Amino acid sequence: MAAVCNIAMIGQKLTARAHCNAFLKVPRFFNLPLQPVMYSVVGADLISLAPFADRWGWRKYSTAWKEAIKDPAVNLVDITGPNHLHAEQAVAAISAGKHVACEKPLADSLKNARLMRNAAVRSRTVKSFVWFNYRRVPAVSVALQLIREGRLRKIRHVRASFLQNWGGADAALSWRFQKKYAGSGAHGELNAQLIDLARFLTGSEFIELTGALNETLIVERALPEPPGRNANRIREPKRRTTGKSDVDDTSILIGRMTGGVLARLEASRVAAGHQNDLSIEIDGDGGAIRFDLYDMNALRFYDGQEDRRTAGWRRIVCTAAGKHPYAGAWWSDGQGLGYEHTYVHMAADMFASLGGEQPATPLPDFADAYETQRVLEAAMLAAKHRAAVKLTEIK
Amino acid sequence: MAAVCNIAMIGQKLTARAHCNAFLKVPRFFNLPLQPVMYSVVGADLISLAPFADRWGWRKYSTAWKEAIKDPAVNLVDITGPNHLHAEQAVAAISAGKHVACEKPLADSLKNARLMRNAAVRSRTVKSFVWFNYRRVPAVSVALQLIREGRLRKIRHVRASFLQNWGGADAALSWRFQKKYAGSGAHGELNAQLIDLARFLTGSEFIELTGALNETLIVERALPEPPGRNANRIREPKRRTTGKSDVDDTSILIGRMTGGVLARLEASRVAAGHQNDLSIEIDGDGGAIRFDLYDMNALRFYDGQEDRRTAGWRRIVCTAAGKHPYAGAWWSDGQGLGYEHTYVHMAADMFASLGGEQPATPLPDFADAYETQRVLEAAMLAAKHRAAVKLTEIK
Amino acid sequence: MAAVCNIAMIGQKLTARAHCNAFLKVPRFFNLPLQPVMYSVVGADLISLAPFADRWGWRKYSTAWKEAIKDPAVNLVDITGPNHLHAEQAVAAISAGKHVACEKPLADSLKNARLMRNAAVRSRTVKSFVWFNYRRVPAVSVALQLIREGRLRKIRHVRASFLQNWGGADAALSWRFQKKYAGSGAHGELNAQLIDLARFLTGSEFIELTGALNETLIVERALPEPPGRNANRIREPKRRTTGKSDVDDTSILIGRMTGGVLARLEASRVAAGHQNDLSIEIDGDGGAIRFDLYDMNALRFYDGQEDRRTAGWRRIVCTAAGKHPYAGAWWSDGQGLGYEHTYVHMAADMFASLGGEQPATPLPDFADAYETQRVLEAAMLAAKHRAAVKLTEIK
Amino acid sequence: MAAVCNIAMIGQKLTARAHCNAFLKVPRFFNLPLQPVMYSVVGADLISLAPFADRWGWRKYSTAWKEAIKDPAVNLVDITGPNHLHAEQAVAAISAGKHVACEKPLADSLKNARLMRNAAVRSRTVKSFVWFNYRRVPAVSVALQLIREGRLRKIRHVRASFLQNWGGADAALSWRFQKKYAGSGAHGELNAQLIDLARFLTGSEFIELTGALNETLIVERALPEPPGRNANRIREPKRRTTGKSDVDDTSILIGRMTGGVLARLEASRVAAGHQNDLSIEIDGDGGAIRFDLYDMNALRFYDGQEDRRTAGWRRIVCTAAGKHPYAGAWWSDGQGLGYEHTYVHMAADMFASLGGEQPATPLPDFADAYETQRVLEAAMLAAKHRAAVKLTEIK
Repeated sequence: MAAVCNIAMIGQKLTARAHCNAFLKVPRFFNLPLQPVMYSVVGADLISLAPFADRWGWRKYSTAWKEAIKDPAVNLVDITGPNHLHAEQAVAAISAGKHVACEKPLADSLKNARLMRNAAVRSRTVKSFVWFNYRRVPAVSVALQLIREGRLRKIRHVRASFLQNWGGADAALSWRFQKKYAGSGAHGELNAQLIDLARFLTGSEFIELTGALNETLIVERALPEPPGRNANRIREPKRRTTGKSDVDDTSILIGRMTGGVLARLEASRVAAGHQNDLSIEIDGDGGAIRFDLYDMNALRFYDGQEDRRTAGWRRIVCTAAGKHPYAGAWWSDGQGLGYEHTYVHMAADMFASLGGEQPATPLPDFADAYETQRVLEAAMLAAKHRAAVKLTEIK
Repeated sequence: MAAVCNIAMIGQKLTARAHCNAFLKVPRFFNLPLQPVMYSVVGADLISLAPFADRWGWRKYSTAWKEAIKDPAVNLVDITGPNHLHAEQAVAAISAGKHVACEKPLADSLKNARLMRNAAVRSRTVKSFVWFNYRRVPAVSVALQLIREGRLRKIRHVRASFLQNWGGADAALSWRFQKKYAGSGAHGELNAQLIDLARFLTGSEFIELTGALNETLIVERALPEPPGRNANRIREPKRRTTGKSDVDDTSILIGRMTGGVLARLEASRVAAGHQNDLSIEIDGDGGAIRFDLYDMNALRFYDGQEDRRTAGWRRIVCTAAGKHPYAGAWWSDGQGLGYEHTYVHMAADMFASLGGEQPATPLPDFADAYETQRVLEAAMLAAKHRAAVKLTEIK
Repeated sequence: MAAVCNIAMIGQKLTARAHCNAFLKVPRFFNLPLQPVMYSVVGADLISLAPFADRWGWRKYSTAWKEAIKDPAVNLVDITGPNHLHAEQAVAAISAGKHVACEKPLADSLKNARLMRNAAVRSRTVKSFVWFNYRRVPAVSVALQLIREGRLRKIRHVRASFLQNWGGADAALSWRFQKKYAGSGAHGELNAQLIDLARFLTGSEFIELTGALNETLIVERALPEPPGRNANRIREPKRRTTGKSDVDDTSILIGRMTGGVLARLEASRVAAGHQNDLSIEIDGDGGAIRFDLYDMNALRFYDGQEDRRTAGWRRIVCTAAGKHPYAGAWWSDGQGLGYEHTYVHMAADMFASLGGEQPATPLPDFADAYETQRVLEAAMLAAKHRAAVKLTEIK
Repeated sequence: MAAVCNIAMIGQKLTARAHCNAFLKVPRFFNLPLQPVMYSVVGADLISLAPFADRWGWRKYSTAWKEAIKDPAVNLVDITGPNHLHAEQAVAAISAGKHVACEKPLADSLKNARLMRNAAVRSRTVKSFVWFNYRRVPAVSVALQLIREGRLRKIRHVRASFLQNWGGADAALSWRFQKKYAGSGAHGELNAQLIDLARFLTGSEFIELTGALNETLIVERALPEPPGRNANRIREPKRRTTGKSDVDDTSILIGRMTGGVLARLEASRVAAGHQNDLSIEIDGDGGAIRFDLYDMNALRFYDGQEDRRTAGWRRIVCTAAGKHPYAGAWWSDGQGLGYEHTYVHMAADMFASLGGEQPATPLPDFADAYETQRVLEAAMLAAKHRAAVKLTEIK
């Protein structure tokens, strides 16, 4: 019988729900060396937390994260709340000798990210993970395979964008629009994922942020409805007051990576027509790959070593068991996966790793995510100073 | 506290797994009037059944479907096994006063389908359901809305195809290639779904199958490995023997529906390049809709009432809560669903219906699926006689 | 200095214009063994013919086609007028010893097509050509190459459709809607091209039309404005009268071809959302090709002999000089061609052939087009009798 | 009878051929107030020039551009040669009182561009034109219409890329790789077109180049074969010598435009898989448009003012006469245009303008193209200094 891994999860919002679903499903679809147990959940709002815990089958729930972390039964602390709390919670978990998984971005600031990295690196027993879930789309894993096999030869270009449109003038001033909670806006939330993917897929590291735009396009935003009020009823604009957003709505970067790779990344929350449009393309002397989240079960591949007569971008549907990572755990060939499966795959790899096995795709730890955070910081400085920033300037 | 609905499920293969996942997830994502309980599972192979039941949390398991159906605690019998057993099992369930859900196609023969329809119609207390899961892709539900709102005006064309490529010469002779178990091949398995979608979306019924092709392209097939042998080890062709497939590998239909609609449907298991490629397009005087399973989170819509200067096929990403059916139960806008969610939606609608609520999208019962079976039969006759067959000839 | 080829062209409408453009351009882009000369043009309406001839540089113009054909200087007669005149004009040209090129479909009836075929076959000196221009899209030529090289192995399926939407209830009763001039509707105009492509690409011939739908969906149509009236001014519906259309608006076929190929073809003039949407896919045991006229510079190819891990439909942009047929005559790689280039390619191949050279892609002569006409006839019979028709029944 | 416009064209290479074709076709498809006459052509290589002139019907040819310009019969000088000669030739033409059309980019340097702008501005009688041909794709013209009608409301983002792959390590050292002839590489050749489109479509002007990457990725290149040697025979690498490329292979820009527009532009000659891939997207608060040259007959449009339930990117096929610019001059609806038609449209608009009529789409003159050249210059400076450059710094 497999050993168990008791999870204490912090958070009860949208992302927490994706984690719950992953923990519920992963033992049904994957053969794991460790059995995850949904042990305790921590939230800020006890009234909504109780039914949440009940719905997902958490054994305990509370509003006291410090106590929850210290519980001797807990093996893994899973952090899904606002960015500004990541560092304190993660460091506490590591101090308590717990493995720790943290949502992206690693932290709200480079300083806090460094605290987390240092705590993780110093610990000899604790494993750290960061939920860069898009690494674990099967198509992205296949892209990594092809690149590692040298199918692209020397890489020249990384182009990536993550475009959303929910952050227009109508969007209320949630914590995601406030620097004190979020650290940054589209930049930290979306570019962090592009930077992770760029580093992960190319194996190169950023050396310079040559230029960056980082803009708060919509400053004045309505305050959100107070909790407990019905979000769906007719709005009463008179009673509303507004506040100021101080994070970027869009952030665009250009930079250089080791090995001569040039990178261009772009994130926006005000890109009309794009609900959740992540794409990344990598071009090399021998070919190119492209991934579009809108067609997430497929990888585009251009094999430049084929004769031009028959060379062309091909669409590889990455759902064949035994051929494509993770595919064998699911349905028959051609049956698509969705957003939530990236979390299940992350959970599968995490419990494999905690149980002493190899993950199907390399896992990012705090040290790895810290490198991504340094790039975020460099980009913010480059945008601020309107000049290139070398990564060596960012400790 | 919600009343419970104890489920007895028959089957332990791929489709059964999709049902398990649906039963596990549906109460977490939907607010149901009835709480589904994974009560008992019935399979043919006890050795594999025990871990299957354990993995998915079934309270009981056995190889005796008749007893499982009669268990007084059971409220709903769910049938996922080979087509030739559907009728006996469904009729037994209805006789025992249980609600019954059956996988598509309804039966292996029109005669058996008629027994099931009659049993369901005669019963005053039992509800019957057929798992035509693709009705419940959000994009398909939106298509139904648009058509019902008259956006297409008079419908002229239905074009649908369901193309797969797993049935080439290498595929072994499973039950799906044998008439005595499956009834038919691509026709029953795939065309049944197209016929259901065509009827469901247009609201028209077939009146004539004007022409049909129904072909066994590959007759001689290797026998499958006996159970218990490792499917992955090196094959030993010498010891293999072969058998004959007597079902169609491909089936193509043209016909007429009420209201002047012309239909063209096509199913294949030998369509190179197509893993699981279902598409349906409906053209009317006022516009057209198109759905492609390969882009299952989107609906294509051409609004022909718009000025030609700006008219064009649009891709509607059907993931907005409050705007698109089922979307509100899941993730934020733009986060895609996959194959399994169609089963969760079916389960949600089924338990809503059993609990006295309206399903989000109309549910097919046995009487409805029987009409689809009549069309299947008419097509087989048309193919056999190489001449048109009117539906009035099919009782 | 190259010998000349004096052309007498019959027609002055849209298609004639595409021919003019082809004759004007072909000597500039291709090195031809014969120099085409735009010698004389014949039209019905002298008032519009004079400026037409002037605009395109025809040396002579007249309304007398019989005389124009007999002119001793003429080498090639090019027929672009209504279908019901093709036979008389083509036979006259052949009798006069002229090479003859005729627009598709070959004729308005099988009987007339047979007259043309016989006249061409009997002649020892005359070459005949039919303007099946879509054979000469570079992507289609590449498809032929791949099929001939055996990349698809045994062919199983041909699926093709040609969808247009100009024939709705608003379209006036032009000659294209009248059997006495056109022979048939969508069937002869569009299916003829699909049948030609299916035969051309697979190298198979039809043996049976198993089923067919052939429908006049809109019978009553407004009469067109009399010539000389301004088509753009405000319409006066009161003075309009209507007439009856007696040709099909849509025509759908299923049939068998030699070599075990199953074919499904579909043509419509009332397919909302489709302006001029021709597509053809051919699936074999070893792979598949697909061509979409909406993306006419590309060929889709699925190489089924590649490992499933990296197999996928690829989009080959067929614009590379030295790699793709015709591409070297035009622009740099990646610069697209359009509709008119298919006519230029046809002209280039025709003058190459007349000058004793090999065309880049095989050219259809009257005997070849007659086989296509037989399939058209068989389909009309199958639709009429609502039963299969064997090609052996069609002489 | 229409007045004539005698053209003297400088150049005999690929682009010159596109101009010849445009001059040949434009009077056949458009009704022009002025009749273009292919009067004289000037080239460097007399041996190839004679057959070139003959093929295209130029009345005269010579190697002496100065004399050709001065010829009193000439009305319009058309410049298609290397960038470093544009200024001298254009200024001479203007001095001689001739209208002048010049290929993009305007010049090899800002200084030369300024000379051209000043000469054009000072002249009271001469009209100047720059062949930014992609403005005249019908889909791009429709995009301009929609933007001018306010369908996008406030514009936030411009994203554009022009990716090619012909500039890999195998490409020989033509003039396009040498600064003294070309001025710059991908930047001047491709970004110039993106900058023009960004300015043209948004109506905004650049105010700052915030960051830029400008890289010579492949420095050492083989010298091209000397003229007169057969390019197709087997290469003899031993006798080859190499030279140094000193222009950029790729150039990526981010910047700000008036009205709060953020722009990201990217050009590359080493983007594997992209033969000639130009795309531009513009997002505003009210919607978005996107154009892809690979699908050049269509415009993508997202109408954000539509309800989210049915909002989606639509593909508008821009081939309807009377609805879409230029479409009425060509073929029936749905028949596609290609690369060469952009030149024909430019010629049509140019001769319309010279004849006193309005062009269908605004034409760029030297003053307009000079603004684009300033942006090119600012980007090169920003790349060099690795810091933002304001346009006010560029005179």
